[in-house]
Amino acid sequence: MDEAKHHVVVVGAGFGGLELTRALAGAPVRITMIDKRNHHLFQPLLYQVATTSLATSEIAWPIRHLLRKRKDVTTLLGNVTGVDRAGKRVLLEDGSSVAYDTLVLATGARHAYFGHDEWEPFAPGLKTLEDATTIRRRILLAFEEGERETDPAKRQALLTLVIVGGGPTGVELAGTIVELAHDTLRGEFRNIDTRQARVVLIEAGDRILANFAPELSAYAQKALERLGVTVELGRPVTHLDAEGVVFGDTHLPARTILWAAGVAASPAAEWLGATADRAARVLVEPDLTVPGSPEIFVIGDTAHLLRPDGKPVPGVAPAAKQQGKHVAATIKARLAGDTAPRPFRYRHDGDLATIGKRAAAIDFGWIKLTGWLAWWLWGIAHIYFLIDFRNRLAVTLSWLWIYFTGQRSARLITQGDGGKG
Amino acid sequence: MDEAKHHVVVVGAGFGGLELTRALAGAPVRITMIDKRNHHLFQPLLYQVATTSLATSEIAWPIRHLLRKRKDVTTLLGNVTGVDRAGKRVLLEDGSSVAYDTLVLATGARHAYFGHDEWEPFAPGLKTLEDATTIRRRILLAFEEGERETDPAKRQALLTLVIVGGGPTGVELAGTIVELAHDTLRGEFRNIDTRQARVVLIEAGDRILANFAPELSAYAQKALERLGVTVELGRPVTHLDAEGVVFGDTHLPARTILWAAGVAASPAAEWLGATADRAARVLVEPDLTVPGSPEIFVIGDTAHLLRPDGKPVPGVAPAAKQQGKHVAATIKARLAGDTAPRPFRYRHDGDLATIGKRAAAIDFGWIKLTGWLAWWLWGIAHIYFLIDFRNRLAVTLSWLWIYFTGQRSARLITQGDGGKG
Repeated sequence: MDEAKHHVVVVGAGFGGLELTRALAGAPVRITMIDKRNHHLFQPLLYQVATTSLATSEIAWPIRHLLRKRKDVTTLLGNVTGVDRAGKRVLLEDGSSVAYDTLVLATGARHAYFGHDEWEPFAPGLKTLEDATTIRRRILLAFEEGERETDPAKRQALLTLVIVGGGPTGVELAGTIVELAHDTLRGEFRNIDTRQARVVLIEAGDRILANFAPELSAYAQKALERLGVTVELGRPVTHLDAEGVVFGDTHLPARTILWAAGVAASPAAEWLGATADRAARVLVEPDLTVPGSPEIFVIGDTAHLLRPDGKPVPGVAPAAKQQGKHVAATIKARLAGDTAPRPFRYRHDGDLATIGKRAAAIDFGWIKLTGWLAWWLWGIAHIYFLIDFRNRLAVTLSWLWIYFTGQRSARLITQGDGGKG
Repeated sequence: MDEAKHHVVVVGAGFGGLELTRALAGAPVRITMIDKRNHHLFQPLLYQVATTSLATSEIAWPIRHLLRKRKDVTTLLGNVTGVDRAGKRVLLEDGSSVAYDTLVLATGARHAYFGHDEWEPFAPGLKTLEDATTIRRRILLAFEEGERETDPAKRQALLTLVIVGGGPTGVELAGTIVELAHDTLRGEFRNIDTRQARVVLIEAGDRILANFAPELSAYAQKALERLGVTVELGRPVTHLDAEGVVFGDTHLPARTILWAAGVAASPAAEWLGATADRAARVLVEPDLTVPGSPEIFVIGDTAHLLRPDGKPVPGVAPAAKQQGKHVAATIKARLAGDTAPRPFRYRHDGDLATIGKRAAAIDFGWIKLTGWLAWWLWGIAHIYFLIDFRNRLAVTLSWLWIYFTGQRSARLITQGDGGKG
């Protein structure tokens, strides 16, 4: 590789980082892609791994395989610990560092407990493959322990599964878990009836899917309740532990609690010593650069940018992709001598959420869809967006199998917590 | 379930335990199946998970799903810690116990280091899904670290992968790993040439596949060497650690060492206070009962039984299945009033091993097969033996994909050691 070429270092091979790298194809640059994982994760389908519908390898691909044809890209597995803005170097955990001409931080977000980190052991969130296999293990173990438990109260607590947070992830988890319990596992136990399992979705606000149009929130709630989910609105969770969860004046004994209530950005702001919002997102300039460092861009869930209407750009895959494309264009323009700032404008394509395997809610703004048609549209869209052809095929087969047999393919409990398997 | 019925407790849902349960269908008994995992594992293909060819869920199925139609069977996830022979109870880790009329122990084997347990952290073996994902992680990390490593000696150590033990597992691991390095990963790295990776198979004896006919051992060795594997014979490993392995007077620097050199039985002998052989296998009567306890059977890798020719019954899936069937027949005969001892006779069907994705060695005794024909036969046989139709389909697709593209579907490094992912 031509060492003399302008060196773009990209940290994070999520939707934003990959889109940026794609859009830089053919540009007079050399690229180093650094990620602490060896795989790109298709997060929109992560909840399906957590609920035994898909295998881990169906929604994750080796980054260097995705970029294998790009001889201008070097992929490194490494843990970034800081950025030397003056020396223009990215610092890695192993003590080495990588020099850059342009730096793009696309390091995403983790789930957050807003001052209640002590809740994490009892209520795992869903951001990584390990999170998904941990949740999968907890859900399946609850039923296994229920089958052995003789005390009725303890058994009911084992068969009560709580999801905290009524956003798309919470809704999708609740809908799939209730199907898993009432449909997939039915008839396989001798001492419990899995249809007695309670799935409770707790949302602090006054409706689920708050970003969607109100009628879609109402539809999604009805659809969940039809599946057997109990939806609790308007009372935030004030305490949770191994025994259960407290919201308002209700104490609900539950041995399985899942966290879908909030995220915080990666430590990029700390690395840069930059100003961040409450969720640790870097406050970027309209052109997505870091104030004072025009050669450093922050995109995706790690960036905080307001839209003309004053609302923040949402932390969704399309926003990250649009920002990746935009920054790539900015880099190319600069190399061509055009250094004028290029403000980013977010185009909102719409919001989607599935409710079980029969219904979905889609809000394109100009049109709103619900029911089985929306579900199929959602499915086709997601299969289309799956990067790798073979995974499209594998996921399509897995889904058709589940759709027609109700059986799920990845019902594995592997030992130890923290996401083995 | 009719509590009055004769209660058969089966510990272990491997090939032996499942075959026994199947063969007891319709018998006047109720069955409790206890396993410490929730899944049956198709161990003959475990090396393909370790080498990124198959996903974990393609070779493992929930036990209670396999037995869902058997209303006479209760499946329990539980860890057996002992057997009360006088009180006829199986003791579980959680303090509870299960009474039995007839007990069948089919608890299998673990890999063993023969007095060198300190080697385990440096040379993981391959018996569980976690073992497989640990090995997968180590292999992939070696190349990732090699891409970052600048010291030539350290880099060579990272690109040297050692397999200890020249049995079928060692041969299959070596052949697949060398293909992974030289074929699958080729062209995806910028600082290393994965074709420079060295794969070394170390066997203490004078030939690999010692149970096979000598000409097949010679064929397998040539086939491995053609793929690029270095085969070292006649010198046992005397030391190994994080830096490498010592055999004879050779010290080979290697950062990835895999253990395929031996197994020891589960602690069943301890639970029973029964006599065991060097590998901890229970010395059973000709009818597979435990001396002094005709109501307790031990089958599969946990049992030690000599054949008429003085050779022990091998620890392979067909032997475990035959013993499961035999014990089921004995139980039925007893319930019908025929209590005469029924000695077990092992029928040897043959030995198989694959070498990479183009060759295999099959020894049926009366006929010996090698080359691509043997490979296809092996593949068809294994797909046939896969229990669940959907997995047959999934595995077939995965294999055809690998066969024609050289690409593997499960190249995931997940965090933490001990088999996450």
